[in-house]
Amino acid sequence: MRFFSDNAAAAHPAVLEAIVATNRLDTAYDGDEWSLRLDGAFSELFGTQVRALWVTTGTAANCLALAALCPPYGGIICHRDAHIEVDEAGAPGFFAHGAKLILVDGPGAKVTPDLVTSAIDRIRKDVHQVQPRAISITNATEYGLVHSPAEVDAIGELARRNRLGLHMDGARFANAIVSTGASPADLTWRAGVDTLSFGFVKNGGLNAEALILFKTEFADDILVRRKRAGHLLSKGRMLAAQILALLDNDLWLANARAANAAAQVLAKAAGDRLIYPVEANELFLRVTPEEAARLLAQGFDYYDWGSGQIRLVTSWDQDGESVAKLAAAIEAL
Amino acid sequence: MRFFSDNAAAAHPAVLEAIVATNRLDTAYDGDEWSLRLDGAFSELFGTQVRALWVTTGTAANCLALAALCPPYGGIICHRDAHIEVDEAGAPGFFAHGAKLILVDGPGAKVTPDLVTSAIDRIRKDVHQVQPRAISITNATEYGLVHSPAEVDAIGELARRNRLGLHMDGARFANAIVSTGASPADLTWRAGVDTLSFGFVKNGGLNAEALILFKTEFADDILVRRKRAGHLLSKGRMLAAQILALLDNDLWLANARAANAAAQVLAKAAGDRLIYPVEANELFLRVTPEEAARLLAQGFDYYDWGSGQIRLVTSWDQDGESVAKLAAAIEAL
Amino acid sequence: MRFFSDNAAAAHPAVLEAIVATNRLDTAYDGDEWSLRLDGAFSELFGTQVRALWVTTGTAANCLALAALCPPYGGIICHRDAHIEVDEAGAPGFFAHGAKLILVDGPGAKVTPDLVTSAIDRIRKDVHQVQPRAISITNATEYGLVHSPAEVDAIGELARRNRLGLHMDGARFANAIVSTGASPADLTWRAGVDTLSFGFVKNGGLNAEALILFKTEFADDILVRRKRAGHLLSKGRMLAAQILALLDNDLWLANARAANAAAQVLAKAAGDRLIYPVEANELFLRVTPEEAARLLAQGFDYYDWGSGQIRLVTSWDQDGESVAKLAAAIEAL
Amino acid sequence: MRFFSDNAAAAHPAVLEAIVATNRLDTAYDGDEWSLRLDGAFSELFGTQVRALWVTTGTAANCLALAALCPPYGGIICHRDAHIEVDEAGAPGFFAHGAKLILVDGPGAKVTPDLVTSAIDRIRKDVHQVQPRAISITNATEYGLVHSPAEVDAIGELARRNRLGLHMDGARFANAIVSTGASPADLTWRAGVDTLSFGFVKNGGLNAEALILFKTEFADDILVRRKRAGHLLSKGRMLAAQILALLDNDLWLANARAANAAAQVLAKAAGDRLIYPVEANELFLRVTPEEAARLLAQGFDYYDWGSGQIRLVTSWDQDGESVAKLAAAIEAL
Repeated sequence: MRFFSDNAAAAHPAVLEAIVATNRLDTAYDGDEWSLRLDGAFSELFGTQVRALWVTTGTAANCLALAALCPPYGGIICHRDAHIEVDEAGAPGFFAHGAKLILVDGPGAKVTPDLVTSAIDRIRKDVHQVQPRAISITNATEYGLVHSPAEVDAIGELARRNRLGLHMDGARFANAIVSTGASPADLTWRAGVDTLSFGFVKNGGLNAEALILFKTEFADDILVRRKRAGHLLSKGRMLAAQILALLDNDLWLANARAANAAAQVLAKAAGDRLIYPVEANELFLRVTPEEAARLLAQGFDYYDWGSGQIRLVTSWDQDGESVAKLAAAIEAL
Repeated sequence: MRFFSDNAAAAHPAVLEAIVATNRLDTAYDGDEWSLRLDGAFSELFGTQVRALWVTTGTAANCLALAALCPPYGGIICHRDAHIEVDEAGAPGFFAHGAKLILVDGPGAKVTPDLVTSAIDRIRKDVHQVQPRAISITNATEYGLVHSPAEVDAIGELARRNRLGLHMDGARFANAIVSTGASPADLTWRAGVDTLSFGFVKNGGLNAEALILFKTEFADDILVRRKRAGHLLSKGRMLAAQILALLDNDLWLANARAANAAAQVLAKAAGDRLIYPVEANELFLRVTPEEAARLLAQGFDYYDWGSGQIRLVTSWDQDGESVAKLAAAIEAL
Repeated sequence: MRFFSDNAAAAHPAVLEAIVATNRLDTAYDGDEWSLRLDGAFSELFGTQVRALWVTTGTAANCLALAALCPPYGGIICHRDAHIEVDEAGAPGFFAHGAKLILVDGPGAKVTPDLVTSAIDRIRKDVHQVQPRAISITNATEYGLVHSPAEVDAIGELARRNRLGLHMDGARFANAIVSTGASPADLTWRAGVDTLSFGFVKNGGLNAEALILFKTEFADDILVRRKRAGHLLSKGRMLAAQILALLDNDLWLANARAANAAAQVLAKAAGDRLIYPVEANELFLRVTPEEAARLLAQGFDYYDWGSGQIRLVTSWDQDGESVAKLAAAIEAL
Repeated sequence: MRFFSDNAAAAHPAVLEAIVATNRLDTAYDGDEWSLRLDGAFSELFGTQVRALWVTTGTAANCLALAALCPPYGGIICHRDAHIEVDEAGAPGFFAHGAKLILVDGPGAKVTPDLVTSAIDRIRKDVHQVQPRAISITNATEYGLVHSPAEVDAIGELARRNRLGLHMDGARFANAIVSTGASPADLTWRAGVDTLSFGFVKNGGLNAEALILFKTEFADDILVRRKRAGHLLSKGRMLAAQILALLDNDLWLANARAANAAAQVLAKAAGDRLIYPVEANELFLRVTPEEAARLLAQGFDYYDWGSGQIRLVTSWDQDGESVAKLAAAIEAL
């Protein structure tokens, strides 16, 4: 019974069907009919004109966006627990040619206006220190917390005032939407977000993520960078079709709803063991080594976070029985 | 009836089946059972111990390899018509941090020892000029010619003598193997090749290419570079499974044989119109604008190469009827 | 008697005096009074508002400018014999993060509108090929030819029409000004030049070159890049003072006039041996190995250009006697 | 009366004389007689075979060394107050192509074995996190503290055990040598240092720093990187001559001794106001805004460090009278 990560879950059957349905000769790269539908589909979803590109990983989506928002000599303000800082092997430095991540620290991997302001204030305005050019936030965060539209907007306001770009790493954007009940528009461009890595792989996709550009003028730049980074697949239609299948009938929302609901069942069982409120599909629990071992012995898979903490992640396809068993096992600790 | 490119052909049904068969929860990235089988499968195929990595594009395979072979301040000798020079949006400069392509020119995009020697001789041995560190050849070439084992070996010998790495872009490696009748070993490591981009996407794959390291000591470096370039997919098992399906029962050879055979039918019809001998699955024909228009009007799709030339490419799934019709149409011009 | 290069000549006494005169405590970097005078001094010289920065090498000047004109994924059209291509160790690829030099070929290292047009026309307008973003020309060229204001203007017009930046490598700008008799303005910004590497080191300077920005909006970007490349010296006043000393009373013009005049004496002696017209301070002569040896034996130093060619370069401080002797020796061959 | 920085002090007269003495035609770049003497001079000073290169800035020295020690995808452990982190505009990311600075935090900008160990331990050994490849320490530190030979050796031991390169930023190496009384050898290579930025500019030089390679095998790589970064000056002899003049008769030590002695006079006056022990030529004092204003009003220049702290730096040429006056003024606060 696996609660290790949503990263390696299965793809949704509808996604595989969509891939199979595109398996015929067509225009290569992104000139096919499916790829051409992405801009329209996301523009409708977000209620504004956007450009939407497929890529195969969240790292590619994040770092292509950051490279467009930040020159090689600029800085990107982000949380010290952000995926771009701790889990992308320095990809921002690669894609953005040495641009620097300027780290802030606060609970739950959440970026707040105060943290950003204080990071900016610490920097002398001269050529000797790297000047910030962008902010990157994650929603839901690496600790399963969400930024509400108001919280994003406060950061967006700060970004505008300081002429900084604003990127949202939405590897679990679907979970954040379900959790906040916000509209995709309110959680992004209306709150000042310029670019969004819209995750599908953790939410039923096979290997397609979407990069959404609310500032459409970035498209020409990013389309070239995508090719130059080896991310322009010849059968791109297979990627576009996956995304369209998940958008269809709001399957992406249904998937995220299932994952979030499973997390709530576990959260209720975990009670005081919870280190953070459970707002998406991740839980962090305090357990003793003995308790951790007991869960493992019962067949529950988790991520050992160190320092007496374990991480549990629920997926779109988590079966109810496993969830109930784990909830019971946690209560029984 | 499409003869435009093998790039956008369908995936082989066995490939799709293999993907579907892996669609269950498993270890993320490349720790799954399929990915773990790649080293063994290719070591067997090549008759020596290799490391094999999946990536999603030939550009990624080529440029990850080149970055390992050449420092940022080095040069890579290649043909001026090589894919890395003309069709990868400067990706070698991106992955290898500004490394320079040192161009040679000769018929059919073939690199020869004389061309390499003369390129080396033109370079002063000082810090003012970029010194070569690697050679990259393409087999089959962008003009559908093949390098024989002896030809590769002559370049390999030159590389060894000058302490240059040797990379082979094998986007159409299968076609070259079928055409030369050589063993995979003879066409690569026995002839001095250090790294091979082993193409599957043009030959029945969906979106998986293999990067083969005959110098296995490059693996640690390249594994990190792959992640850092956003090319470490979480469901990597889907990529490994495709490759294994094509290796299984030599499906990759059967596919290439079909493509090459179709090309021979057309070659026979084209006769004197051929600009290069047809050694793989590409044909370049001299046609007048009127002739080109006539082919188009009959429903034949091709790539207008400019200067009164058209390119025809046959694929693994080219149907015999279309081929026969096109052959007739060419003869009738 | 040295005619090897103007690169290693002495500095003018006035330059050394200027350095000594600044040798007291002052603001570090470029906040001192000398550095602050550069913008004004060059604005007056060029008859328009410019920004002017000191750097220590022509390579730094060229490549900082190119990095501002061209994104990492763009191309810079230049001559295949341009210094940035053959003598800067790949520095453009370093400073501009992998940007590509797109080479044209023509006599005397001169870039012409036809060459540029044909380079542009060869490039498909898609994401697979590197798109040009800038042109770089050298004046005087590496073969001692000059571009006239009209010739620069024709390239400038082409640059504007294609939205390309235009950089001039003026390592021997002074010699070009003296040779053409043009005003600094006519040879640069009025002809469409955006940035100029204004060379002083070959013309009496010690180790200061000027980078002139006719598009002043590049200054913020380039000032940061200069620091980031380790080119912001703490005692920048020593660099600014050199430049000001050479501008003072048109010493830079007097120096170039002396070098060009010496070249003309030699040119007259060389007659039919000349490979290119002598328009600045460089001469390329056809000589047999025996003749070359004879010159050497008489104590004349030159650069062996290979293929039966030698290069002679005259400097600002070339003594008349040596020049007369060499002229006689050439005539006597 | 200036105590703002040692960065903008005058050059020592002997340095200017040395420059003037080289002002004649000679081989360009680093082939001249002065440049050729550097390896020998430093090998003698350090009692082992080294390679020594001139550069014009500490940033260039530091970052060329780091680029040789660390691949683009690696990490460099350093203090969060290190010059390379806070005052070089992201130059390490530029020279080392996106390599990451891994920050440790401790008093006085000193790196300790415990800090390094804990930084290493926090990093998972996988491809998702940037792996350390080098350590950089500063001696004397940015807060005027010194690392003793034993302290460096403990870090060196850790570096060896973890296969990390060890770089020392010695912008104030002379002050550290004078302060510790250690031999240059004991403070560097005998303690495990691989590369040293040996500062001269803050200590009587005009614009020359030395990069010392105790691992001489890095030389070929770094010589190319220096050229490629635009740091190979054509009149390099002017740089070499400065360094040789300062090495001559241990002038560099005399200069540092004077600066350190002046700092001790001030330290005695400052007493409890001192935030750090004064071990080199920098002092950090606690003062109220009123006290700070009073010093300023008396003509004493300092650097406002914020948070009620001021920094005072003494130079090689600090006159005794100013020092005595400032000491008195501090006591009178």
